[in-house]
Amino acid sequence: MFERDAALRVLTPEQEEAIHEQAMRILEEIGTDVKHDRARTLLSEAGLKVEDERVHWDRGFVMEQVAKAPPSFRLRGRNPERSLTIGGASGSPAWMNVGGPPFASDLDEGRRSGRMADHDRFVQLTQAAGVLNCVQVGAVEATDLQMESRHMDMEYSAIRYSDKPCTTYGTSGPRARDGIRMAEIVHGGREAIEAEAALMGIVNPNSPLIWDFRMTDALMVWAEANQPVVVTPFLLAGATSAVSVSGGLAQQVAEALSGVALAQLVREGVPCLYGSFFTVTDMRTGSPAFGTPESVLGVLAGSQLARRYGLPFRGGGGLASSPAVDAQAAAESQMMLWATNLAATDVVLHAAGWLEGGLCASFEKFALDVELLGQFQLQAKGIGFTAEEMAFDALQEVGPGGLFLSSPHTRAHFKEWLYMSPLFTTPDFATWETMGSETTEVAANKAWKRLLETYEDPGLDPSIDEELKAYMASRRDAPDLFAED
Amino acid sequence: MFERDAALRVLTPEQEEAIHEQAMRILEEIGTDVKHDRARTLLSEAGLKVEDERVHWDRGFVMEQVAKAPPSFRLRGRNPERSLTIGGASGSPAWMNVGGPPFASDLDEGRRSGRMADHDRFVQLTQAAGVLNCVQVGAVEATDLQMESRHMDMEYSAIRYSDKPCTTYGTSGPRARDGIRMAEIVHGGREAIEAEAALMGIVNPNSPLIWDFRMTDALMVWAEANQPVVVTPFLLAGATSAVSVSGGLAQQVAEALSGVALAQLVREGVPCLYGSFFTVTDMRTGSPAFGTPESVLGVLAGSQLARRYGLPFRGGGGLASSPAVDAQAAAESQMMLWATNLAATDVVLHAAGWLEGGLCASFEKFALDVELLGQFQLQAKGIGFTAEEMAFDALQEVGPGGLFLSSPHTRAHFKEWLYMSPLFTTPDFATWETMGSETTEVAANKAWKRLLETYEDPGLDPSIDEELKAYMASRRDAPDLFAED
Repeated sequence: MFERDAALRVLTPEQEEAIHEQAMRILEEIGTDVKHDRARTLLSEAGLKVEDERVHWDRGFVMEQVAKAPPSFRLRGRNPERSLTIGGASGSPAWMNVGGPPFASDLDEGRRSGRMADHDRFVQLTQAAGVLNCVQVGAVEATDLQMESRHMDMEYSAIRYSDKPCTTYGTSGPRARDGIRMAEIVHGGREAIEAEAALMGIVNPNSPLIWDFRMTDALMVWAEANQPVVVTPFLLAGATSAVSVSGGLAQQVAEALSGVALAQLVREGVPCLYGSFFTVTDMRTGSPAFGTPESVLGVLAGSQLARRYGLPFRGGGGLASSPAVDAQAAAESQMMLWATNLAATDVVLHAAGWLEGGLCASFEKFALDVELLGQFQLQAKGIGFTAEEMAFDALQEVGPGGLFLSSPHTRAHFKEWLYMSPLFTTPDFATWETMGSETTEVAANKAWKRLLETYEDPGLDPSIDEELKAYMASRRDAPDLFAED
Repeated sequence: MFERDAALRVLTPEQEEAIHEQAMRILEEIGTDVKHDRARTLLSEAGLKVEDERVHWDRGFVMEQVAKAPPSFRLRGRNPERSLTIGGASGSPAWMNVGGPPFASDLDEGRRSGRMADHDRFVQLTQAAGVLNCVQVGAVEATDLQMESRHMDMEYSAIRYSDKPCTTYGTSGPRARDGIRMAEIVHGGREAIEAEAALMGIVNPNSPLIWDFRMTDALMVWAEANQPVVVTPFLLAGATSAVSVSGGLAQQVAEALSGVALAQLVREGVPCLYGSFFTVTDMRTGSPAFGTPESVLGVLAGSQLARRYGLPFRGGGGLASSPAVDAQAAAESQMMLWATNLAATDVVLHAAGWLEGGLCASFEKFALDVELLGQFQLQAKGIGFTAEEMAFDALQEVGPGGLFLSSPHTRAHFKEWLYMSPLFTTPDFATWETMGSETTEVAANKAWKRLLETYEDPGLDPSIDEELKAYMASRRDAPDLFAED
């Protein structure tokens, strides 16, 4: 029920066209600032009008470039059996853990600044979770390590503790290069990762309409190496975009497509994704609000627009604003996960563990989200129609007024056919109260520990391990590490 | 996005046909027991094969009868402006409060046996909630009143404290007659309510495949009075139906259509609904589990089947198993509410307040559900495309790198365009902790009290009030009240 062909469409063809038309006007008439000399030179040489830092993007050029991006691509896992096809009719959605929060939390230790050990544990949980097939580097910021070099430690964590495909940390050109170099070490050199991509780089323009130096630099480094670029405008209606959904969508198209066009100019055919991270500003607090009606519509419309441009779609996730793993957190996440599934999203960052508007990576929230993702997978399987499932004979045998509870048919099949959630239970109230009135948060604490116990270390070739460590050591000693990017 | 035409289809045409074919075989080859003499006589006279209590329902007869039920009908509110069209292309979904729980709970008084005062308060909250347009009688069982007559007190509660359309309590023929008599008093006599229906009666066969005396009797009383009959098999896979979704659906069709056929035989053209209440048994506890993947698929498939038969569809709701207003409760309810909306369900009982598998009517859960229903309404509105919303000029004015937070466009529109949930908030963690780490349940306690403060008594014509009270008094004194039905 979440097939690509059945993806919910919330824009009429006329509305889709209106957004496209306005995006083209934004690019041509307003333009974007591009704070990167080499990028501006490339764009100018391609015939675009450039005035100081302002680039006016001709629509013909943009659409021509966008058309060069492939509709799908392969992303390799360290274990080739875990490699993914992303996008297109034959692709599978990539589901990932949360990324980016400065804080981590669990019921045992409470909320604290993120540590390397927390990062490792999130990677291990992601490796162990069957519903996640990709690792987001930077699950939580390892604030206990030196800022200048910890991006490499987090890359290493994803490589060492998981053999699933992964993203990369890179928030600047030099960091992007480190991620690529480490991927080369793992996957057998530059040629290998250029032939089949080994990481995905996430790029956020500085909205509205600024391509700043660091992100542009990272984008170009990934494009040069033929690594997929996820161009994701981070739009908060009322802060970084206009206070309306249609206005935000037009800006999203303008920003996303200009990023894709630049990437194609750097290297024709590099995989690029249309990314959507759109929600509203809670004007009472100035914070983003997640799971709102506007963001549900934003994910669905974003997916529709990405398909219009023939690009794989990144969006959605288990996003929530709530500071606790409570009813609000679950309600918000469900809004987003339903939209994500109904949009047939190709790449889902932050599918598990996101709490507190993305400021906190919660282990209990991770367990809750993994449970929900599993339920969506079962829904997607649909209804079985074998003769045994149709069960005419079983009904005839039980007959009017009979009981299925003890019937041979029920006993033969209930374990295989019925879903009994390990996290959600159905105790009678008196028993539940006697047992300590356990809420979901407490049950989730047990659930992620159970999951962690199933973690199997995929191991890492000692020579690769050594080479990675040597590279990281050499970079830590490099004189340019502390230089301004 | 939740339009009837766009309702999600989870059955292929072949699967739909397979369910229909098996349902017809169930009705013809297995049949149902009908424990009601007059009903059996009617069915026998109509040419069906009847052996003792077992009725074999000829498929030609059943489909002919079902075709007589109207695709839509009007349901009158005490306030005519609140009357509804239910079903068909022009109908609006009817959203209702929870019904049936023996227990009530709120944070102030905890969990207790339901009282008349709780029932009144749920009716008042339903009247006050803009997202609910219909009242379910029996919101919580008034266990502090005499069992034999409290159905009338609960009918009175819905009439007195709300002017929205409502269901009726009736779980037996005599109770159904009391509800009809009270509706006659309110709406100006039998002729008036026969011309435009004044209540909806809910009928559950005794699954599998039994039409017991009481429910059959109630069904016939409602049909005679031309009041809509909601025929809802209560199917728990592994208990009252086979332990599979397709098996359950075939049984659901057989039970629902036999009930509709009987109603049409009693009175041709009486509005009938195809009802679905399908979920699985949690084999660990023997309790029903709500919000499961099977029940999501059940709602969507049920809606598709109802449309096949040209009947309005009743299903879904804010169903949850959790004993607390926690993440599990919200996650389960969201599963069901998404399915309910995506199925374009016509009649939704239990949309707000259902907790603990239906054993408890929770005021905090009511507030949570009302919040969620409001968010779905906003999603359904879709995206606005006025020039002001498209906001090209606003973006041009703000320009690359500008801030929308203080722009005139944002200040002019954010109050109207942005949804800021009164229940879900986005505090920063330190503030939230300082303020007492309030979870959603605590916020919901305040939310239902705020809602209750907005309640406006619709009043009741004193002569009608007096007549209702006199009728109830006369029935309390009636010698047959304590007789077996």
